[in-house]
Amino acid sequence: MPVKTIEWVGGQDGVARMIDQTLLPAELKYLDVKDVETMWEAIKTLRIRGAPAIGIAAAFGVYLAVRNTPGDDYAAFKAELDRAADYLGSARPTAVNLFWALRRIQNLAAAHTHEPVPAIQARILDEAKRMIDEDNTVCRAIGEFGLQTLLEQPRRTSTTERPLTVLTHCNAGGLATAQWGTALAPIYLAAERGILIHVYVDETRPLLQGARITAWELQQAGIPVTLITDNMAAAVMAQGRIDAVIVGTDRVAANGDVANKIGTLGVAILAKEFGVPFYVAAPTSSIDMQLESGDLIPIEERKAEEVTEGFGRRTAPVGVAVYNPAFDVTPHRYVTALITENGVLRPPYTEALNRLFTPTTAGM
Amino acid sequence: MPVKTIEWVGGQDGVARMIDQTLLPAELKYLDVKDVETMWEAIKTLRIRGAPAIGIAAAFGVYLAVRNTPGDDYAAFKAELDRAADYLGSARPTAVNLFWALRRIQNLAAAHTHEPVPAIQARILDEAKRMIDEDNTVCRAIGEFGLQTLLEQPRRTSTTERPLTVLTHCNAGGLATAQWGTALAPIYLAAERGILIHVYVDETRPLLQGARITAWELQQAGIPVTLITDNMAAAVMAQGRIDAVIVGTDRVAANGDVANKIGTLGVAILAKEFGVPFYVAAPTSSIDMQLESGDLIPIEERKAEEVTEGFGRRTAPVGVAVYNPAFDVTPHRYVTALITENGVLRPPYTEALNRLFTPTTAGM
Repeated sequence: MPVKTIEWVGGQDGVARMIDQTLLPAELKYLDVKDVETMWEAIKTLRIRGAPAIGIAAAFGVYLAVRNTPGDDYAAFKAELDRAADYLGSARPTAVNLFWALRRIQNLAAAHTHEPVPAIQARILDEAKRMIDEDNTVCRAIGEFGLQTLLEQPRRTSTTERPLTVLTHCNAGGLATAQWGTALAPIYLAAERGILIHVYVDETRPLLQGARITAWELQQAGIPVTLITDNMAAAVMAQGRIDAVIVGTDRVAANGDVANKIGTLGVAILAKEFGVPFYVAAPTSSIDMQLESGDLIPIEERKAEEVTEGFGRRTAPVGVAVYNPAFDVTPHRYVTALITENGVLRPPYTEALNRLFTPTTAGM
Repeated sequence: MPVKTIEWVGGQDGVARMIDQTLLPAELKYLDVKDVETMWEAIKTLRIRGAPAIGIAAAFGVYLAVRNTPGDDYAAFKAELDRAADYLGSARPTAVNLFWALRRIQNLAAAHTHEPVPAIQARILDEAKRMIDEDNTVCRAIGEFGLQTLLEQPRRTSTTERPLTVLTHCNAGGLATAQWGTALAPIYLAAERGILIHVYVDETRPLLQGARITAWELQQAGIPVTLITDNMAAAVMAQGRIDAVIVGTDRVAANGDVANKIGTLGVAILAKEFGVPFYVAAPTSSIDMQLESGDLIPIEERKAEEVTEGFGRRTAPVGVAVYNPAFDVTPHRYVTALITENGVLRPPYTEALNRLFTPTTAGM
């Protein structure tokens, strides 16, 4: 079983327990978060990261802020609730899922203004816990569809002697979600059923999420893992070591184009060249039907020091120009399938995605 | 002009002056090597690196060992010469070019046993200096052919507003040779003629030769350079920023397959996908006509710590499996042209390489 990224421990006076991801892979330390200020700091400093996990953390953060407001003073409760939502939103102002989670908690409170404050407080804690359950359900459904897809695909005849082997990039694992991950969910579900899938992990420069986080969480769960530098992916594919690539995504456009961590596009092109299927684990929450194509996704450029001083000491000349895009866009033609919690989508994606978001007319 | 990697300063009692490459890119420090022990240490600890540069260093090393042997004692001179050759060979036992250079000096001495010792000593110094001249001649010829090739190729119409832009991987620059480099020679020759070519440099994990050495030497020579991580090459090509890729090689097989630093294969495949020409600067000394194809080249695997602790601190979990091949092989079908000092070779390479190594029959 993958480790739990975040969970609630105890009753209404309990704590949000989370792994401090900034200490990985050197140290596994759990933080017991008891107040909203500590939660803000944890989100701000990336002790917790990944869209679903941040959303859950924010929901618990709101609960921690309001759980001690006087039970007979709705106005004080409501003021504290709104203040906490604004405050938590400021921790990662560009994290869409953070605001989605905060709105969800605010909407819940707004729908129950007729109830006593303690009842609303209890509802908020329940809602935050429900977000964990929902995340687990979505991730496990992606895991089921992904595993089925991996097991059904034709195996390279030359490689049937070794375990099924996949390559992944960055971290779309349990530590980006509550527990199961998206791209790694099929791996964990397979392990649960006694099937060990070997995972090659790109270290994922510049921030090394693959080396630091993905390799660590797979190792913790007893999954066979081999770490490579990003530029080794072509060699391992050329050697026939890889049966499939599976990665996560930050955003899927209506035509199936996929934005994900820098380097994903290169892996997708190599997979195509070597006839290796390229799968994208895409919870429907990451699909943006308003976005016609991936060309419209703005690419965030990050600071040069991530490349030139990424490991604690300078490894490039002072003053050198650096291009450091955080993401790239993989055109849909390189994507073998999108694995969602509602099923496996294959090309043509415009049609498949439209069907996914069209209310069923079965029985009419 | 690119910096000089190694040169002789002074007369017969002079010194071999070289850049201490282990201090780059933080510090430019020249070493004045006056004895064979210091030269051995410099080769051993990679203060000087790159096949041609190591060969030249070894030749100067032999001279430093024998320059003070008594002028009237041939036996003592010859014993010292052989001892120095064995000793210097032990500094990098797998460096083919090191042994080639040592044999060349030994053969020279053997061909002049009838001369007085001081005359042979002078010949050895001259021979070592000649190796610099020859290296410069080869590199500049590669530069000429490479530059002509770069300037003649069709430009992407959408990118004529910006300077010609190439991408390179690892270091096949001046610091791997006496001064001009192989893959970077066309860039330096262009600059000499007032044409600035913009160079994107892959940082080249795990040992970061691109970030540490290539970016540094281009910056020193006033060439516009942009550093990227290896996994950004696909994105910069997708954005139409790259007009050509040019890399060096460790070994070219008789069919045109090319062994080079890990990551080269990936760059070659991306170049093909984006319609960007992929050029390999290949001095004829790197072409091995005994080697039928690149499949026969053994791939050296290096220690895991280069990947897991490459920057002075651990960035991956303890105990994780690592695959760390030092090289990969790029099949000839991805190679647009081989740029040698004797001309530009294009497919089919088996025929082109055979012609290159067949004595000319012109005039018969």
